[in-house]
Amino acid sequence: MSDALRATLLVSCRDRTGLVAALSDFVFRNGGNIVDADQHAEAETGQFFMRLVWDLASFRLDRRGIDAGLTALGQAFELTYELTYSDQRPRVAVFASKTPHCLYDLLLSHQLRELRGELVAVVSNHEDLRTTAGHFAVPFFHVPVEPGQRARAEARQQELLAELRVDLVVLARYMQILSPELVARWPSRIINIHHSFLPAFVGARPYHQAKARGVKVIGATAHFVTAELDQGPIIAQDVCHVSHRDDVDDLIQKGRELERQVLTRAVRLHLDHRVLVSENRTIVFG
Amino acid sequence: MSDALRATLLVSCRDRTGLVAALSDFVFRNGGNIVDADQHAEAETGQFFMRLVWDLASFRLDRRGIDAGLTALGQAFELTYELTYSDQRPRVAVFASKTPHCLYDLLLSHQLRELRGELVAVVSNHEDLRTTAGHFAVPFFHVPVEPGQRARAEARQQELLAELRVDLVVLARYMQILSPELVARWPSRIINIHHSFLPAFVGARPYHQAKARGVKVIGATAHFVTAELDQGPIIAQDVCHVSHRDDVDDLIQKGRELERQVLTRAVRLHLDHRVLVSENRTIVFG
Amino acid sequence: MSDALRATLLVSCRDRTGLVAALSDFVFRNGGNIVDADQHAEAETGQFFMRLVWDLASFRLDRRGIDAGLTALGQAFELTYELTYSDQRPRVAVFASKTPHCLYDLLLSHQLRELRGELVAVVSNHEDLRTTAGHFAVPFFHVPVEPGQRARAEARQQELLAELRVDLVVLARYMQILSPELVARWPSRIINIHHSFLPAFVGARPYHQAKARGVKVIGATAHFVTAELDQGPIIAQDVCHVSHRDDVDDLIQKGRELERQVLTRAVRLHLDHRVLVSENRTIVFG
Amino acid sequence: MSDALRATLLVSCRDRTGLVAALSDFVFRNGGNIVDADQHAEAETGQFFMRLVWDLASFRLDRRGIDAGLTALGQAFELTYELTYSDQRPRVAVFASKTPHCLYDLLLSHQLRELRGELVAVVSNHEDLRTTAGHFAVPFFHVPVEPGQRARAEARQQELLAELRVDLVVLARYMQILSPELVARWPSRIINIHHSFLPAFVGARPYHQAKARGVKVIGATAHFVTAELDQGPIIAQDVCHVSHRDDVDDLIQKGRELERQVLTRAVRLHLDHRVLVSENRTIVFG
Repeated sequence: MSDALRATLLVSCRDRTGLVAALSDFVFRNGGNIVDADQHAEAETGQFFMRLVWDLASFRLDRRGIDAGLTALGQAFELTYELTYSDQRPRVAVFASKTPHCLYDLLLSHQLRELRGELVAVVSNHEDLRTTAGHFAVPFFHVPVEPGQRARAEARQQELLAELRVDLVVLARYMQILSPELVARWPSRIINIHHSFLPAFVGARPYHQAKARGVKVIGATAHFVTAELDQGPIIAQDVCHVSHRDDVDDLIQKGRELERQVLTRAVRLHLDHRVLVSENRTIVFG
Repeated sequence: MSDALRATLLVSCRDRTGLVAALSDFVFRNGGNIVDADQHAEAETGQFFMRLVWDLASFRLDRRGIDAGLTALGQAFELTYELTYSDQRPRVAVFASKTPHCLYDLLLSHQLRELRGELVAVVSNHEDLRTTAGHFAVPFFHVPVEPGQRARAEARQQELLAELRVDLVVLARYMQILSPELVARWPSRIINIHHSFLPAFVGARPYHQAKARGVKVIGATAHFVTAELDQGPIIAQDVCHVSHRDDVDDLIQKGRELERQVLTRAVRLHLDHRVLVSENRTIVFG
Repeated sequence: MSDALRATLLVSCRDRTGLVAALSDFVFRNGGNIVDADQHAEAETGQFFMRLVWDLASFRLDRRGIDAGLTALGQAFELTYELTYSDQRPRVAVFASKTPHCLYDLLLSHQLRELRGELVAVVSNHEDLRTTAGHFAVPFFHVPVEPGQRARAEARQQELLAELRVDLVVLARYMQILSPELVARWPSRIINIHHSFLPAFVGARPYHQAKARGVKVIGATAHFVTAELDQGPIIAQDVCHVSHRDDVDDLIQKGRELERQVLTRAVRLHLDHRVLVSENRTIVFG
Repeated sequence: MSDALRATLLVSCRDRTGLVAALSDFVFRNGGNIVDADQHAEAETGQFFMRLVWDLASFRLDRRGIDAGLTALGQAFELTYELTYSDQRPRVAVFASKTPHCLYDLLLSHQLRELRGELVAVVSNHEDLRTTAGHFAVPFFHVPVEPGQRARAEARQQELLAELRVDLVVLARYMQILSPELVARWPSRIINIHHSFLPAFVGARPYHQAKARGVKVIGATAHFVTAELDQGPIIAQDVCHVSHRDDVDDLIQKGRELERQVLTRAVRLHLDHRVLVSENRTIVFG
């Protein structure tokens, strides 16, 4: 991962005619160098998506100037866009419960500088993972969720997220269902890991379901959280082969491996500004 | 694949105490050499499964003697078993419609002597694949299925299967649903390929469903056919990664690759007498 | 695969400053619509690579005009480029010997219209595959290679390739080594399949080498042929898992599956104009 | 993983005639129940290998009796064998240097009770990983390896391994080469992770080698350490796909994922007594 200062632009619009030319001309005319560009036209919806990264080393506009330029282009082409700079590291809160494997993977990736973001908090409804967070020097917040008291817990969580200026929430095997209200406040900004290759085995105890159905592959799915459980846009999925020899405990163990890989991969893609949402699907610029 | 004469025994029973000792003693006492042995105890059902292969080169019992010996053991241990000899090649009929890729894969595997069975017929409701069958010198039978006339077509199919002494029916993208009556006559002896990683996307047009849901993997599933559509015991599954770039046609193309591999793999496993069914699951001795 | 008329431009150059803007402006200004664009900057060599596809439906330049425009841009930016139109289908000759699996896969893909090219000839040093070619209505040419007579055989092959106006040669398990002279005439236009995950197990009998080394994965590699045996730029590779149970014959059988998939994938990528060569490596715009 | 008390027998011999019968009879006659049995006959060497697991719950022989019985069978059939009981947990020392990912994976697997052994020490030539070991409550020993002082360091390591009664040494990206003398004392009891799909890219900086060769897959290999560097029997391997977009740092990052998975998998297999060595290959009873 380069440390050069860069701008990344994620764009969606309906009609792309002239857009690529206009955007590349905007970058070129102001002394920028396009480092990466990717695009996708979706036949089904008629939408066009683009990711453009350019080097700011000798760019002649400052951020205010870039804003002005993009505002003008955005109006001309009716763009929805998101602009980020590589020195703005998104702030991430990880929600977890008791199982540590997904949390460890995120913390270690962070420590190894594989994530373009800051882990600023581990939030949990249990105390078990406090020392894990502490080992990696990430603040830990215990927010218990008493039966029937979800609203109160979520109020505290919201407060924390606001105080810590969190940009992204990652549910790393967090065993509570978030309210539609909380979800609605964080559109495309909560990533969950589900322990099946969705849409197979939605809901609880997917490894038990998998064993009962006798499948020969199991999987894990990272997706954005929406109001409908397990139905949000899928960011990443992976699977591994299993056999009749694997009992439910074996599936759980093999699944752990998948869950942490797939979740960390999805978080990494999101923090690299590679993920766009279109209706209930994602465009992932790999 | 060795050409030595061998016996393969597939066994299920409730209690295995002493069974392995009794069976291996039976083989040893009569001058046989155990070439392969595999077993599985299923905690959920309390069932025990075993596959035993032995060399008949210097075995002192003839087939009548083996029958007698196994009958005695079968009663002593309350076994369900199936005994086959490597010189008895199961006879296979492939049902297909118009799409050729799965059929080609089976025909070529057969020609390359990768299948321990004989392809004795290609049966189709269309004429399109006649020359394909002919190219590989496999007899082709056109059995049209007129709307509302399935019973008549199935009567003709049954007649053919009986005449040709068929042991296994393979549905290689055969686009007709078999009646419960026909299915009931062929328990664990009809293998179908479904173009999704079941239980995701049951029913029609799974690649369209996959595109709509935005999954990042697609799959194929080979399973035994039962009365309930897409619900039979799964023999083999595989998946491949896809992205937002893949439109439905791309999924169909990538899926073809999976379908033929998974179907041929399942047929090969079955013809090697490696597949046992327990309730709605398979034990596959790999 | 869309049937709309399109132009595909593959470009390499040293300095990309302004290039993306210039090319997209060229397309836009003349009424074209960019359908796909991908680029890669190679840090090691300082080279820049780009693939640009645009729709010609309402493009205001004819092919002569496009040529003129690109010639000007090519000089301005010191480009090496290759321009193709989607109605120009590259002509492909497949060289094979006796083993049919790779040839079948190519022929079937062609028949299923998965390849953007025409298979115009099967050339073989044996007669065995004549009927296979014939079944798919592709002309078959028997060019025997007598010991010590390679030069004579290659002269005949060259003649054939010239007569048939062949653009790409695919070695589908062709068991003869081509002379450096012939290879030199077809730079980046001969694709071979090697039955190992190169650079492991170069040379002969890789599955025997794999068995002897006790590896747990085997693989296949499609690469452009260069004067140095098994050293050319790699286009595609894949592997599968094996175990101690697999004897050399099993490895050969599993390998067949890999070989044909990997070779067909590489040919498809090349015919889609997605492959560029840089020194001894490929850029594959996926 | 069941907690029932079990015996596991790993056997190699030249001639298996009657052996399976004799062993299963030994277990049955003394009231044991065979829980798992697997076998392999190696055509190339004429060797026979077997793994037999039985339940000791109602076994009528104590360990002394089992020893006597197996000694007799061992002489009769000229067996080499290893007998272990499930309440004897092998003691494992992990050697590491500075990179933490493989060590974390082993420590976490241990904490999650996925390993049938005890991690009794982390031994390192640097201080960096002391807190990591401490976090998981595993003793850490700093054994510096000064230039030209390997013998002294190895003497200290041997002392430690003896004191701690270590059964298995795992090199988790330990960046020192062990002397042939140390290796000779630990035949088939030192597991190393090499960061390539051996035999490709032996030696140093395999990811740089992989980038230079332009491969489309990278891999990792866990193997027993022998006197010849990177040449020992392979226990487990895995690979992942890469592209021209991956620079050496990306390969290193993707490789980390492979390295820790493959190493932990190999250690788990060994601790489950599933790995036998035959010449320079392994039999892995999966």
